[in-house]
Amino acid sequence: MALSPYHQLEEEFHRLHVFRGAASLLRWDQAVMMPRGSIDVRGEQLAALETECHAILCAPKVSRLIERALANSSGLEDWQLANLKEMRRQRDHAIATPASLVARLAQESAVAEAACIEARRTQDFAVLRPHLEQVVGLVRDKAALLGQHLGLAPYDALLDEFSPGLTTGEIDALFKALGRRLPGLIRDAIELQGAEPPLPLLPAGARLSVSKQKTLAVEIMRAMGFSFERGRLDAADQPLTEGVPGDLRVTSRFDALHPLRGLYDALHETGHALYDLGLPKEWATQPVGRNRGLVLEESQSLLLSTLIGHSRPFVAYLQPLLEKVLGVSGPEWSADNLYRHLTRVQRSLSRVDADELTRPVHITLRFELEKELLTGALKVADLPEAWNAGIQARLGVAPANDVEGCLQDMHWPAGDFGFFPAYGVGALISMQLWEKLRTDRDDVDGEIAAGRFDGLVGWLRENVHGLGASLAVPELIQQATGKPLSAAPALRYLDAKYLEQR
Amino acid sequence: MALSPYHQLEEEFHRLHVFRGAASLLRWDQAVMMPRGSIDVRGEQLAALETECHAILCAPKVSRLIERALANSSGLEDWQLANLKEMRRQRDHAIATPASLVARLAQESAVAEAACIEARRTQDFAVLRPHLEQVVGLVRDKAALLGQHLGLAPYDALLDEFSPGLTTGEIDALFKALGRRLPGLIRDAIELQGAEPPLPLLPAGARLSVSKQKTLAVEIMRAMGFSFERGRLDAADQPLTEGVPGDLRVTSRFDALHPLRGLYDALHETGHALYDLGLPKEWATQPVGRNRGLVLEESQSLLLSTLIGHSRPFVAYLQPLLEKVLGVSGPEWSADNLYRHLTRVQRSLSRVDADELTRPVHITLRFELEKELLTGALKVADLPEAWNAGIQARLGVAPANDVEGCLQDMHWPAGDFGFFPAYGVGALISMQLWEKLRTDRDDVDGEIAAGRFDGLVGWLRENVHGLGASLAVPELIQQATGKPLSAAPALRYLDAKYLEQR
Repeated sequence: MALSPYHQLEEEFHRLHVFRGAASLLRWDQAVMMPRGSIDVRGEQLAALETECHAILCAPKVSRLIERALANSSGLEDWQLANLKEMRRQRDHAIATPASLVARLAQESAVAEAACIEARRTQDFAVLRPHLEQVVGLVRDKAALLGQHLGLAPYDALLDEFSPGLTTGEIDALFKALGRRLPGLIRDAIELQGAEPPLPLLPAGARLSVSKQKTLAVEIMRAMGFSFERGRLDAADQPLTEGVPGDLRVTSRFDALHPLRGLYDALHETGHALYDLGLPKEWATQPVGRNRGLVLEESQSLLLSTLIGHSRPFVAYLQPLLEKVLGVSGPEWSADNLYRHLTRVQRSLSRVDADELTRPVHITLRFELEKELLTGALKVADLPEAWNAGIQARLGVAPANDVEGCLQDMHWPAGDFGFFPAYGVGALISMQLWEKLRTDRDDVDGEIAAGRFDGLVGWLRENVHGLGASLAVPELIQQATGKPLSAAPALRYLDAKYLEQR
Repeated sequence: MALSPYHQLEEEFHRLHVFRGAASLLRWDQAVMMPRGSIDVRGEQLAALETECHAILCAPKVSRLIERALANSSGLEDWQLANLKEMRRQRDHAIATPASLVARLAQESAVAEAACIEARRTQDFAVLRPHLEQVVGLVRDKAALLGQHLGLAPYDALLDEFSPGLTTGEIDALFKALGRRLPGLIRDAIELQGAEPPLPLLPAGARLSVSKQKTLAVEIMRAMGFSFERGRLDAADQPLTEGVPGDLRVTSRFDALHPLRGLYDALHETGHALYDLGLPKEWATQPVGRNRGLVLEESQSLLLSTLIGHSRPFVAYLQPLLEKVLGVSGPEWSADNLYRHLTRVQRSLSRVDADELTRPVHITLRFELEKELLTGALKVADLPEAWNAGIQARLGVAPANDVEGCLQDMHWPAGDFGFFPAYGVGALISMQLWEKLRTDRDDVDGEIAAGRFDGLVGWLRENVHGLGASLAVPELIQQATGKPLSAAPALRYLDAKYLEQR
């Protein structure tokens, strides 16, 4: 008997799933194992797999099957309907931009990324400028075509890839609500924390065994439910989560001079990995069985690494492990000093090193600037000045050069516009989920302090992970928390955490 | 402008090449890095990629393009014609066996392999018997269909996959010519070597650092031309060469109790790797740019690991390296004692551990038995008895149980028939190439003793590696050595090596 259109689509998307899984393993291998000289071969392999995935989504056969399945969907179960909707969504995104534009953008952004590295080396934005102009022009074309196809404003169309279902207006409102409160909160928190910094964890230049750091990370990841029977943790130049549920590959940056960085990178990635592990197994090969986009991924990594990882109960759990596994002791490794380290608020220039309170400021600046770059209201040539004025106005700090300013991120040269907001919205989502989780499980602090994570991970699995991509982001948050997505839980959380008397 | 049929085929086979490269990396990862629990996920990925490759070769579109390109081939260059011929060959092999038979064989052989492991554990052939009967029945069907499609006798059709262009009759004649001389040669060699065994390299139970062994292997592989900028050597349960030229992944079994095993496994794989590295780069993604089958692969690994690796000049090069890198010394590590180890002839029961003189005997026994299993002249139930009688008659040794007998190899349970002869013919080819190489480069012994391998590898590149799959095996040997493939060079080589006065 011939398969129905819907079931034929399931087969096509199963193929897509396998190719994406193979590509992910190849990326992991590139970061961890690949000989340096083989980058050209790997580039070809990844490009060919990418082309194959794109070809599946753009095949006229797949479009015909989608139309026929939609026209005759009465026999489908709810999850199959959701799956069909996701198939259409992926198809719509793939088909809107011609392959030639995709290829040119890939090419120009590779050049712009190299130029950005050179511009950093020479502290000279002019090296990047012409290439970034090219990229911005191509992204503008892409946004216009995507918007036309999806029936969205151009920038909304870009957002939709990373934060499915959210618009510029909604994100704007969220960031504004947070932004009204942040300056005062940052000022008060810094005042409360006082001028005296926490004791340094290590004397200047001292080193702490990377192998012990990794042992520690493995022990904590295991406690959180990461399965080393079906996953690995390895050292690499950047933290990543690759692979597929059933074979997850986490990497982290371990550094003998920064004893906690490798652990917290690993926790961040473990947040991603647990999300992937909790995705609905029966839909594993299908679009509806995938995660709900970067914005939700980010909410899960922040929830684990920051909301939990930078909390007092977690420090109570961590502190004896540090003594046991790393063999450290003394006042600098006390729970109090560790907590002061992890919650220190500072007005700084770097997004990556920013704390919980100032990070949204860095994100909002990028959100504002990239919208203007795309409309043309801001010229690439004027970016450094606009950046410096923006960060000065928001945080009162001034970059000494563009390396400390608009050259610090690789997202724009790489062609990733509409991406930064997902970091900020992801953080808000993590706080809204956290508030509900704490209401539903009133001893969660006790569980964390005792190193028992199965209950809270179970809550996330039930309310987030297990839903896959079956709901758009706003619906998922409404269902999980009983309230629309808003900045209010974040403000309550940040107020409570940073204005408590210490 | 639309692409010509031939150039459309090049694109299809380029896709095939990428999928095969990705699958090879996944296999390497499975052997070296993959978490043990992820085998089910990996199995699905490899099966899906295999299905994809099969689908490309069996697509009606590809067959139509092949017919059109063949009908209109006047504008093609020689290598393109050879490529087209190889495309047709791959298509013919793929299309002859229905997917349902391929799937059943894969399934039954997976069961039979597991049963073989259990039969070894319990020393009970009966555990394997029913499953091996299933596999033999399916292979018989496959051979019949393949033979019909290729216009070959059934067993010849199986041979064609591993030893392209060679028939049962030719292999039979080669093995008979060798077999007539071997018994006398084995007897004389053993007599000449005397009853006194070489000194053991290590005292019983002593261990030699695996990490030093690996350092040694890396140093020698580098000298032979393996590029660690574009390749790796890792420890694994079995020696493998995976990846693609440009990113070659070699594994070896290092064992602290067996100080030379890891090195010689690595040299064997380096023979494969150098072959892959020397394949014609301009055809890298095309069928004609692949190796000329298992039989040629095996000739290259034996040439490096045995003909060169077990020679006096190589031992002269190796001995000071052992002292330097492994930190060993004394009479047991003298060049003479090492050479006695490497050339010791013994009538034994194991193919894998057999020496240069007795290995062909083990291969020939399997060649005879598998032909009879396929015709039905030998019943699976009678295999143990036939095996034991065969090895007793040929080598005068008797297995104490079937683990030492017909359960020692996994090839038949795995469904690999027509495979064993390639080991034997590969050995003959290695000796015929070696004779010609020594004539063309008369100081090759001096080069080897000095650790200079570029000249001899260059010869192999010019005469074997660089030809890819452009010629069938007999033509390739004729062109490289000026003579038809025969056992005569092997007999000359073995006589000279094992009957010299020591």
